[in-house]
Amino acid sequence: MTDDIIQKRFGERIRSLRQLRRLSQEELAFRAGIHRTYLGGIERGERNPALKNINSLADALNVSLPELFQFGETRKSK
Amino acid sequence: MTDDIIQKRFGERIRSLRQLRRLSQEELAFRAGIHRTYLGGIERGERNPALKNINSLADALNVSLPELFQFGETRKSK
Repeated sequence: MTDDIIQKRFGERIRSLRQLRRLSQEELAFRAGIHRTYLGGIERGERNPALKNINSLADALNVSLPELFQFGETRKSK
Repeated sequence: MTDDIIQKRFGERIRSLRQLRRLSQEELAFRAGIHRTYLGGIERGERNPALKNINSLADALNVSLPELFQFGETRKSK
């Protein structure tokens, strides 16, 4: 996956899981210990979150890291 | 997984996959477009790499992101 697309795909995944759990951005941000505006930037694909925040989001969404990264991607195309 | 442990587990996973592919740190770093000393820090669990670098490492190791995050973890414990 190219750099351009990974942030978008990750952000969409976070938003999708958050909405599935009927959480607001505020609620998820609070659970994950990150700022709401930062979460908004992640969901819009504008941020390049680091491992610790990715892990906090997985915990807050109650998914494993492999599950979090299930974007439905089957092909690698760099 | 706690913040303390995630960097360690991720670093061990990167090192394990790199050695399985018989790549040196130099070779993997070059493939992923990151500096060798930065890769060393990741493998030692001292770095908190961001999504784009994580994605570049997955590509360079020829694994999917879900595969990269298969640490053998089954339990979430934050």
